[in-house]
Amino acid sequence: MSLEERIGYTFQNRKYLKIALSHSSYINEEKLAGYQSNERLEFLGDSVLSLVTSEYLYKEYRKLPEGKLTKIRASVVCERSLCEFSRTIGLGEELLLGRGEEHTNGRDRDSILADAFEALLAAIYLDGGMECARTFALRFLVPQIKAACEGKLFKDYKTALQEIVQKNHEETLSYRLCGEEGPDHAKQFSVEVLLNSNVIGEGHGRSKKEAEQMAAKAALRLMGE
Amino acid sequence: MSLEERIGYTFQNRKYLKIALSHSSYINEEKLAGYQSNERLEFLGDSVLSLVTSEYLYKEYRKLPEGKLTKIRASVVCERSLCEFSRTIGLGEELLLGRGEEHTNGRDRDSILADAFEALLAAIYLDGGMECARTFALRFLVPQIKAACEGKLFKDYKTALQEIVQKNHEETLSYRLCGEEGPDHAKQFSVEVLLNSNVIGEGHGRSKKEAEQMAAKAALRLMGE
Repeated sequence: MSLEERIGYTFQNRKYLKIALSHSSYINEEKLAGYQSNERLEFLGDSVLSLVTSEYLYKEYRKLPEGKLTKIRASVVCERSLCEFSRTIGLGEELLLGRGEEHTNGRDRDSILADAFEALLAAIYLDGGMECARTFALRFLVPQIKAACEGKLFKDYKTALQEIVQKNHEETLSYRLCGEEGPDHAKQFSVEVLLNSNVIGEGHGRSKKEAEQMAAKAALRLMGE
Repeated sequence: MSLEERIGYTFQNRKYLKIALSHSSYINEEKLAGYQSNERLEFLGDSVLSLVTSEYLYKEYRKLPEGKLTKIRASVVCERSLCEFSRTIGLGEELLLGRGEEHTNGRDRDSILADAFEALLAAIYLDGGMECARTFALRFLVPQIKAACEGKLFKDYKTALQEIVQKNHEETLSYRLCGEEGPDHAKQFSVEVLLNSNVIGEGHGRSKKEAEQMAAKAALRLMGE
């Protein structure tokens, strides 16, 4: 299945799709004169996403006060959500990346995936108008909004794991740096998370903090969360 | 001239306009069952404003990178700009306020005016659609965007005043609290700003910080800035 089939939208002008998939590392590396990366589209997509979300919340949740709507919007329109939307449609595999990003696993990096989702949304908006963009985005947003309204707001992975573990007072959680490689500008850290003395997850990232989050995420998956 | 004449838009359903003008202090005080304040409209208007601004910047400034666009958007879509837009159309006089806000000069408070502008924009959007909202908003936004592109980004009033004064090393600027009245929940501070020993501005606000900003603003006006 092609990406257009997976997203349920066929571009009239595929130029927009090409730009949405072009990460800045690809444009910079290839020195493609006249081509542009998806960064400007991401700027526009951020606002399209905000309006689609706000209008849906405004119209569907008539009893909720502004403060609650603002909280739900923030929890739904965040990197954590957007990168998962991208994973659902396999957007990472379609990205055009520079070699550096390719080697450091950029294709699965949360920030790159979240930005690409916003860029793709803007591409649909420019190509097909607001209604097409809305249809595309709401497919992902509505379940997230429902979850947020039920109080299942996102927590960061380490916090979520900590909260599960501390229900049992005898268990202790710790993080251990187990690898560090690559040159300074493209360092890759590996971290293990331990429950008592057992490794329950491993994660990689460009910083120790990111690697710890990824390790906690792996542990949560293992626990079926 | 009526407000609708001043803004160049006639509502099909004036209910939206009524909501946009209803500050929460009015709704709370009157205990108007079934009526709503403009807070939820403000939530929606914030996103409408963001999209109108982003799309205009995206399409009109094709050479500017994303980082620059983001900076311009932030400088244009801020309380400082929005309250001035409201003043241009005399929105303050049309607001429905509670007695408390009325007595503490709420009709001219920056935050109330900025929120009301976003609420009015959302009202036009819901009543007439995106094109009407865009036409209304761009009338205010375009001159601001042009000013921002020319580097005339906003500074806070105290910083702006300080920068003017420090060109002359012998001059010193100071702020002096000269009044404090009202009960704790509705305190009103008065501050004077002095150049050497001469009062060049006076300001009032709900906090000392706000009163200082207003005093600096008055001084800048006096200096013709």
